[in-house]
Amino acid sequence: MSTQAIRFDYNNVMADVIGEHGLTEAEIEAALPHAAAAIEAVYAQRADLGWMDLPYQDTSEIIAQAQAVRARADTLVVLGIGGSALGPIATQTALQHPFYNNLPRELRRGPTLFVPDNVDPELNAGLLDVLDLERTVFNVITKSGTTAETMASFIYFREALAKRLGKDKLIDHLVLTTDPKKGALRQIADREGYPTLPLPASVGGRFSELCAVGLFPAAVTGIDINEMLAGAAYADKRSQERDPRKNPAAMCALIQFLLDKKGKNMVVMMPYAQRLRDVADWFRQLWAESLGKRVDRAGNVVNVGPTPIKSLGATDQHSQVQLYAEGPFDKLMHFLFVEQFQLEAPLSNAYPDINELSYLDGKSFSQLLKAEGEATQLAIAEAGRPSMAHYFPAVNAYTLGQFYYMLEMQTAFAGELYNINAFDQPGVEAGKIATYALMGREGYDARRHEIEQARGRSRSEFII
Amino acid sequence: MSTQAIRFDYNNVMADVIGEHGLTEAEIEAALPHAAAAIEAVYAQRADLGWMDLPYQDTSEIIAQAQAVRARADTLVVLGIGGSALGPIATQTALQHPFYNNLPRELRRGPTLFVPDNVDPELNAGLLDVLDLERTVFNVITKSGTTAETMASFIYFREALAKRLGKDKLIDHLVLTTDPKKGALRQIADREGYPTLPLPASVGGRFSELCAVGLFPAAVTGIDINEMLAGAAYADKRSQERDPRKNPAAMCALIQFLLDKKGKNMVVMMPYAQRLRDVADWFRQLWAESLGKRVDRAGNVVNVGPTPIKSLGATDQHSQVQLYAEGPFDKLMHFLFVEQFQLEAPLSNAYPDINELSYLDGKSFSQLLKAEGEATQLAIAEAGRPSMAHYFPAVNAYTLGQFYYMLEMQTAFAGELYNINAFDQPGVEAGKIATYALMGREGYDARRHEIEQARGRSRSEFII
Repeated sequence: MSTQAIRFDYNNVMADVIGEHGLTEAEIEAALPHAAAAIEAVYAQRADLGWMDLPYQDTSEIIAQAQAVRARADTLVVLGIGGSALGPIATQTALQHPFYNNLPRELRRGPTLFVPDNVDPELNAGLLDVLDLERTVFNVITKSGTTAETMASFIYFREALAKRLGKDKLIDHLVLTTDPKKGALRQIADREGYPTLPLPASVGGRFSELCAVGLFPAAVTGIDINEMLAGAAYADKRSQERDPRKNPAAMCALIQFLLDKKGKNMVVMMPYAQRLRDVADWFRQLWAESLGKRVDRAGNVVNVGPTPIKSLGATDQHSQVQLYAEGPFDKLMHFLFVEQFQLEAPLSNAYPDINELSYLDGKSFSQLLKAEGEATQLAIAEAGRPSMAHYFPAVNAYTLGQFYYMLEMQTAFAGELYNINAFDQPGVEAGKIATYALMGREGYDARRHEIEQARGRSRSEFII
Repeated sequence: MSTQAIRFDYNNVMADVIGEHGLTEAEIEAALPHAAAAIEAVYAQRADLGWMDLPYQDTSEIIAQAQAVRARADTLVVLGIGGSALGPIATQTALQHPFYNNLPRELRRGPTLFVPDNVDPELNAGLLDVLDLERTVFNVITKSGTTAETMASFIYFREALAKRLGKDKLIDHLVLTTDPKKGALRQIADREGYPTLPLPASVGGRFSELCAVGLFPAAVTGIDINEMLAGAAYADKRSQERDPRKNPAAMCALIQFLLDKKGKNMVVMMPYAQRLRDVADWFRQLWAESLGKRVDRAGNVVNVGPTPIKSLGATDQHSQVQLYAEGPFDKLMHFLFVEQFQLEAPLSNAYPDINELSYLDGKSFSQLLKAEGEATQLAIAEAGRPSMAHYFPAVNAYTLGQFYYMLEMQTAFAGELYNINAFDQPGVEAGKIATYALMGREGYDARRHEIEQARGRSRSEFII
């Protein structure tokens, strides 16, 4: 095992540790064939799942384009939503300085990075107040080239650039990450001559962090993307283990599946490290959108899907842990622990004479955070609630890439356990169609008419 | 009704709109006496619930101290955790520019604001890289004066100030918000002479946003805190209505209670406005810590508590809505809608000839965000899932104060419906004690020994 391996510890889901809300060895043993079949089923699809091969891609084009942007930009703005934003954000906060955008240039490894992943008018207009457009590059990310939010942002900022710098300067300020062959954004790139990066058709949005979607912004800000891929390749190797007991992604999927069946319909990811906060948010999309499904592969209505919840240690001890420890037995927790921080941040011997504070004397933030993590995991277990732990030797490009890939594999395995398609998202279509109708898109008039009628049926006694 | 009133619309929880997972009029009617009793019960406790009177406080001392800080600081750092951080953060993001800390000084209404609410070593050490300590004031917030995280931060930054500026300068760089009479921080304030603001004993942490905890940082950055209190006073007036049908806080509590009993054990707050994102996070503490309880008032073990989830429209349409629309019928949603944004952010007629994009021509971000919100609410209802909507005429100090107070009252009413104590948090004690033990605090040796033994019992076959 690599010294950079993330260890997965599931002692605290076992019934002999936490009691009736845990799993017995017999329950796990009985489910192992199911997990083994899930592993086989995923690898049988490998040819169709382009994201599985991303650890082995050639990154030279991404790095070359990133170098070019680093040379001409002080700021990179990513325009994307969903996987096209969550991955770039998670990588940035995991691997950069916690106040990166506020650092002076000489303390940064590259341009500042903004990801305004919402169509909020104030957010987008407000971003213009802090950008020097002459020194800003926009990376527009959408596979289809028709994502309403991303294309609205593209139109808005392209217009701002054209007004400020002139239309002939646009090609120096835009890099488009999209389908290599088709779609509206590809058409625009061809017509207007922007540099592009490929978002392969076989890589779904929520599985796209390890292609140009995540790697290009990371490379622009100075992150070693090949090291991320090396970590992902290591996770690929471990995930290929056919014995589930030796395969962290498969065991992790199986435990979550079994506990969901026992009424734990929520899974809380709680990193004890500020850096991993947005990784929990990235996981939230991966898990929810992949597993939240109405029908199974045979077309039966099943309405399945555990709800992922992002939490943060130690912060949420003062917000959520009361509920986690005393509320209903409806949760399974993932703790993420970091063994070696980049620094300790020691505390001085400030108040030796004040009894309630003297225990902090000469300790460090790192000690306190680790103690709180262990204490919380223990308290949760003693309250009879299941939890798992992932131990990061350190947070770096290698372990981050490893963790992303492990979670992606876990998701694919879980999809097989639930017997659903983990790679589509049919449930968002209805909202898209209603949006088009309300925005007056051609061909959606009938739906618009229906919606207007529905509005009229609201009853005033149910409005206060 | 004030033109600044937030409207509460619960049409989409009704069974005649969404089907079997909704509430019938008969169910609501039958529960009204319970809600009316809850209203009476809360007002009977008013004398003990100091937070209920906060709308009517004298703010002159807070404003005077804020003015003094505005004159001498370019940056305010709030050191607090839980309610002492979530409230200040939520108010800041709701009422200030979306990139406030990155704006040049002349575009800001006051000093920059940082709230490093975690004991992460890299977060705290990293903050020192972006601070000019000579022009920074720290507001330390803890009622007891013994909160481990906050006191560790205080010790750390006090030492940094003393090293950089000299011990005699500390009093110009610290403002302590704590119990007016007792506790370690009060003792330190008396000994070292720091200015202080009161955190009254009768105001619990998660109900403290409308006292000095939230108002002082808000006033420092130029927010009209009296307007926040005027909004809260208006919500107080509406919450005193004894008929639940006319009392938004009571109806909202009742609906959530009834749907929790029907298996909707999660409540998702999904604002369609970037500004309200952290208000959902503030609510998450309020709801979870108040209602997540092991025992009821009679001492029966009940293990109750709905799980609050923060979400964000339109962003999470690309992350969570698939699950919300197709997953299990285990959620109730709160949509927060804004009727008037501060600006529209129009889109140009960029691509009239590209069919998939032309519907955006001449529209605005504001239109698109509103359409997506309405479309999502409709799609969720058509998928048979219950939701409520809160309509903000605009997001400003008045509506924000109003919404905070409404949610606090809703929480108090819900505590009565569940028949639990909504104002304690016994479930976090076990974790605190284990932390003290692991940190070597005097008197916790036996517990430390137990924990070390427990570590030894981890079985390697459950670690991969």
